[in-house]
Amino acid sequence: MKKLNVAVVGLGRIGRVHAEILFTRVDEARLVAVSDIIEDLARGVGEKYGVKWYTDYDKLLEDSSVDAVFITTPTFLHKDMIIKALEAGKHVFTEKPMTVTSSEAREVLNAAKKAGRSLMVGYMRRFDAAYRRAKSEIESGKIGDPLVYITIARDPGAPPGWAADPKKSGGIFLDMLSHDFDMARFLMGAEVSKVYVEGGAKLYDEIREKGDLDVVTINFTFSSGAFGMIHGSRKSVFGYDLRTEVMGTDGTVYVGSQRDPNFALGVKEGLLYGGVKWFWGRFYDAYVEEDREFVKSVLEDREPPITGVDGLKVVEIAEACWRSWREKRPVTL
Amino acid sequence: MKKLNVAVVGLGRIGRVHAEILFTRVDEARLVAVSDIIEDLARGVGEKYGVKWYTDYDKLLEDSSVDAVFITTPTFLHKDMIIKALEAGKHVFTEKPMTVTSSEAREVLNAAKKAGRSLMVGYMRRFDAAYRRAKSEIESGKIGDPLVYITIARDPGAPPGWAADPKKSGGIFLDMLSHDFDMARFLMGAEVSKVYVEGGAKLYDEIREKGDLDVVTINFTFSSGAFGMIHGSRKSVFGYDLRTEVMGTDGTVYVGSQRDPNFALGVKEGLLYGGVKWFWGRFYDAYVEEDREFVKSVLEDREPPITGVDGLKVVEIAEACWRSWREKRPVTL
Amino acid sequence: MKKLNVAVVGLGRIGRVHAEILFTRVDEARLVAVSDIIEDLARGVGEKYGVKWYTDYDKLLEDSSVDAVFITTPTFLHKDMIIKALEAGKHVFTEKPMTVTSSEAREVLNAAKKAGRSLMVGYMRRFDAAYRRAKSEIESGKIGDPLVYITIARDPGAPPGWAADPKKSGGIFLDMLSHDFDMARFLMGAEVSKVYVEGGAKLYDEIREKGDLDVVTINFTFSSGAFGMIHGSRKSVFGYDLRTEVMGTDGTVYVGSQRDPNFALGVKEGLLYGGVKWFWGRFYDAYVEEDREFVKSVLEDREPPITGVDGLKVVEIAEACWRSWREKRPVTL
Amino acid sequence: MKKLNVAVVGLGRIGRVHAEILFTRVDEARLVAVSDIIEDLARGVGEKYGVKWYTDYDKLLEDSSVDAVFITTPTFLHKDMIIKALEAGKHVFTEKPMTVTSSEAREVLNAAKKAGRSLMVGYMRRFDAAYRRAKSEIESGKIGDPLVYITIARDPGAPPGWAADPKKSGGIFLDMLSHDFDMARFLMGAEVSKVYVEGGAKLYDEIREKGDLDVVTINFTFSSGAFGMIHGSRKSVFGYDLRTEVMGTDGTVYVGSQRDPNFALGVKEGLLYGGVKWFWGRFYDAYVEEDREFVKSVLEDREPPITGVDGLKVVEIAEACWRSWREKRPVTL
Repeated sequence: MKKLNVAVVGLGRIGRVHAEILFTRVDEARLVAVSDIIEDLARGVGEKYGVKWYTDYDKLLEDSSVDAVFITTPTFLHKDMIIKALEAGKHVFTEKPMTVTSSEAREVLNAAKKAGRSLMVGYMRRFDAAYRRAKSEIESGKIGDPLVYITIARDPGAPPGWAADPKKSGGIFLDMLSHDFDMARFLMGAEVSKVYVEGGAKLYDEIREKGDLDVVTINFTFSSGAFGMIHGSRKSVFGYDLRTEVMGTDGTVYVGSQRDPNFALGVKEGLLYGGVKWFWGRFYDAYVEEDREFVKSVLEDREPPITGVDGLKVVEIAEACWRSWREKRPVTL
Repeated sequence: MKKLNVAVVGLGRIGRVHAEILFTRVDEARLVAVSDIIEDLARGVGEKYGVKWYTDYDKLLEDSSVDAVFITTPTFLHKDMIIKALEAGKHVFTEKPMTVTSSEAREVLNAAKKAGRSLMVGYMRRFDAAYRRAKSEIESGKIGDPLVYITIARDPGAPPGWAADPKKSGGIFLDMLSHDFDMARFLMGAEVSKVYVEGGAKLYDEIREKGDLDVVTINFTFSSGAFGMIHGSRKSVFGYDLRTEVMGTDGTVYVGSQRDPNFALGVKEGLLYGGVKWFWGRFYDAYVEEDREFVKSVLEDREPPITGVDGLKVVEIAEACWRSWREKRPVTL
Repeated sequence: MKKLNVAVVGLGRIGRVHAEILFTRVDEARLVAVSDIIEDLARGVGEKYGVKWYTDYDKLLEDSSVDAVFITTPTFLHKDMIIKALEAGKHVFTEKPMTVTSSEAREVLNAAKKAGRSLMVGYMRRFDAAYRRAKSEIESGKIGDPLVYITIARDPGAPPGWAADPKKSGGIFLDMLSHDFDMARFLMGAEVSKVYVEGGAKLYDEIREKGDLDVVTINFTFSSGAFGMIHGSRKSVFGYDLRTEVMGTDGTVYVGSQRDPNFALGVKEGLLYGGVKWFWGRFYDAYVEEDREFVKSVLEDREPPITGVDGLKVVEIAEACWRSWREKRPVTL
Repeated sequence: MKKLNVAVVGLGRIGRVHAEILFTRVDEARLVAVSDIIEDLARGVGEKYGVKWYTDYDKLLEDSSVDAVFITTPTFLHKDMIIKALEAGKHVFTEKPMTVTSSEAREVLNAAKKAGRSLMVGYMRRFDAAYRRAKSEIESGKIGDPLVYITIARDPGAPPGWAADPKKSGGIFLDMLSHDFDMARFLMGAEVSKVYVEGGAKLYDEIREKGDLDVVTINFTFSSGAFGMIHGSRKSVFGYDLRTEVMGTDGTVYVGSQRDPNFALGVKEGLLYGGVKWFWGRFYDAYVEEDREFVKSVLEDREPPITGVDGLKVVEIAEACWRSWREKRPVTL
């Protein structure tokens, strides 16, 4: 079997997951190298899988055995690292979001075009069985014309480390809700054309101090004439609470997350269902599918399922959200 | 419109519900009389609806304006009252169960046959929208051949008053679970042919003292070769917990009760759903439909939807359950 | 027991329900008269309950035995009928919404003040067990400070008759979604301060032709600094689909409607849950409680639980929604 | 960190999962060898992880670098392989069930005792988050004294290969339902003392021909005086359908599986929830936890969480089930 030689760059939690998946589950890939600026991390992961390890990203890019890199570093580092990799002739998979700003995103797109290399952005929900089935039911016409997209997204807590700084992460609209805008575009088959935002920093002092928001409601429209609503919160006391639905002229698809594990305690007060504690749990298979699809698209020399343009679009939407919030008015894209 | 003149006998909670329904919701019926040995109760309900009221049941039976009686007195009084009514030429609707013993049930059947009058037993779940849909899906072949019937039935508390005495109520197998055996026969379209019971009085001292059981598990078979399991408990701390399912060769139907009202509280411990507090709530419409169907079957001179034979069958099953429990062995019917 | 003599005016579906409830379930009320311009309807209901019946509303108002009227006529008739009743010295319960416009609503408020009579508006969801429990959990502090109110409301079909004309009904924001704005004010304990609307007539030709909308998304804020989102649709193919949630700093309350009856069919494609077909089913008890609370508040000479000011507020919100939609901008109240 | 050197024997689906988990997720283990009689399989897995590979089990047992073996071969091979490993001084983890018969199980227990080596049986549901929470709520006293254990277990299809032969697999009571009896013992903290079985081969011709059953209902009791019901079916058209509950004097715990992924399609017929397609999905983490606990218990020289006696008990229960079914009577253990 033809295999793609891949390297994972940035060995935080998500990077180690990609390394594990590429090693154990993606038959079409051969993990050949890993890289992190923290030497212990790089060596530990490298030795575990018996592959080369680097602390110097430039050195890794010089390694001609590497066909493609998985960039899983903090968002604000993406632009430079992606462009360098493309210029070194590597195919690039980057974790979401692609960049912090849309001008960065456009630089990245240009570099990919110039290099003639593949570029994919990791919105892994697109590969989750439930969202895929929603997409497929919509495409089959089961719900008629899609008219309304709704997502209620509550994360268990405030983002840690660099992600708490909206200048490095893009803030709630990009760091958290770009998943939901990507899903909106994916399921509706249309572009977001106007956004109107309400929101505030109501839950965490550190979020307010850094200039980010932690509770938002967004009303938006699609190029198709359809409508959308997204509510995002950085707090959900019992675990993830993530629900999406698309109403069409003839039906509705629902994707939910409130039951995993499916446990309930029946006591005097009622039926208590256990909270959702997954992080990889539910979505691990989605990451597997995502990595496999990128690898296969490169091997088969076709466009990856989530392109740089997809990456750009959600960055633009997030920027429009910030503008709407600052200017207290609907903003047209 | 041709109307049936009806009387309600026994004005406890369930009797008053039948009176209200017959007055307000069943266009084909004309409530003409009510009766109870407690004078205040009889007069109060009679005056509310502007109808005759009796404290003497024999007098009511002499009232020639009465075509049919609804007998809603305690179970142990049913046999004599039903037979008297039939002998007086009245059609009879009796609350479930029809009688305490199967020999009583056969006396009642004979009297109905001799009198040539209609006799119906009130297993109102047969008229509930969810069970009806289950029945209709089974009949349409959606689940293939029905192979397994399962009910888990937990009541909120021990039965009050006379119903606490198994000699007067038939105990848990008749007073409570005859609903479930009736449903088993109804949904499976087959007779119960063998029962095996385990159980005990584990929850309430008064139940143990009176010789009744409060927790039972029943394994049984149908004449069709299908299998059944019923679990009954006289306690459910958060409200009714009643679930039935029928598995067939090609699918399964489920009827549940755990969500009414459909309220949840998401707190640190998880999602807490409110308990089920209905008594009439969910099933009120089933009572309406039940009363209407009895009235219409009499007016149209056809067999009622739940016959005296149906009433007998579940009494026989309950007796077999008691025997299995006493003799610690499977009992064939 | 002291009783209030009540009359029901307008004997369409909802009027007949109030008549039945006042006759059968509200011990503190005595139904003494009914009225409708259709003589057969008035006579039929009057004779059923053995009460006076009128076709001339003015005559009913001259009837000194009537203490209070329940006005259950089309919305565009409310203003004149309420004011006449108040001027005749009657207490008034009016079905929702109170009036078509806020200037009408203010006329009504003035009339009530001048007459010194009680005025209540029938937003019966406030009396439903699930919403009540949500309110009580919020008030008890279980979810901390309420931060976000969300409702997704889908009705099974386009409104019939006069309600299809937004000039007579107030259109989707008033005729349908005033329930949800009333619930927003009730649960959040705060006023709606700004609304932003997107929407269109996408489902029914007749709605577009009459100038009403059938799909809307609304982003709004509360005087408390909290946020809100409402989505309304005039179509839901499987029955009512009505869900509300309030997220607070420490938890969330959810009220839903997707399970009644609680039936599921497990087939090859998955688990198919039966649609929600209730109209009175779930909410019948809420109407009972509502009527009883109005009657008791009059008898006890205290403010009714939903006042004319409550009625006015939601009319104002609906007007602001229309303005936002026409002017494509957020509108401050 | 002290590490345990482990080998995996039998590289079918479940064996490869254990190999992957031991390599990637269990820090306390070092995968040093794998073995399968199919050379390609042994070599493929061995090279993937860079470890020794054997086709001859005896050779693997001579390898002194191996501290413990994971036996993941067909059930009927377990007894000999476990005993050989113990005699070679290895600690043993065996997939469930431990053996086909209870006399085999006792041989194994004796061998473990004589060898002084650790022996664990892989009932991985004990390590699933939902079952663990159920256990912990029961132990904390939340539901009072456990009175009733109920499991409804439907597998998607008939067992393939050797497992279709009850002489090699132990049939439905051992191959499939020993999971549920193990869970019964685990959650109830009591031994099964009597079983009564109904059942048949109703779904698959090949199952009937081989003398196995595919639909069973089991009524049983516990040494504590509590009761149990288990229903097992080898068919569930929409995917796994596995539900367990324990009712106690003060409440009930429920563990379910009907929602994964949590997808629904709202169409005219109702709300269609997607079926459950997991095999590793939901339980992968349970396997991880299981392997880790075995490895840690050996390193820390303490009894494994599921002992050989646990393995024996469920084999004895399965045998009693077969006897009850053949002799048509309750069988006491």
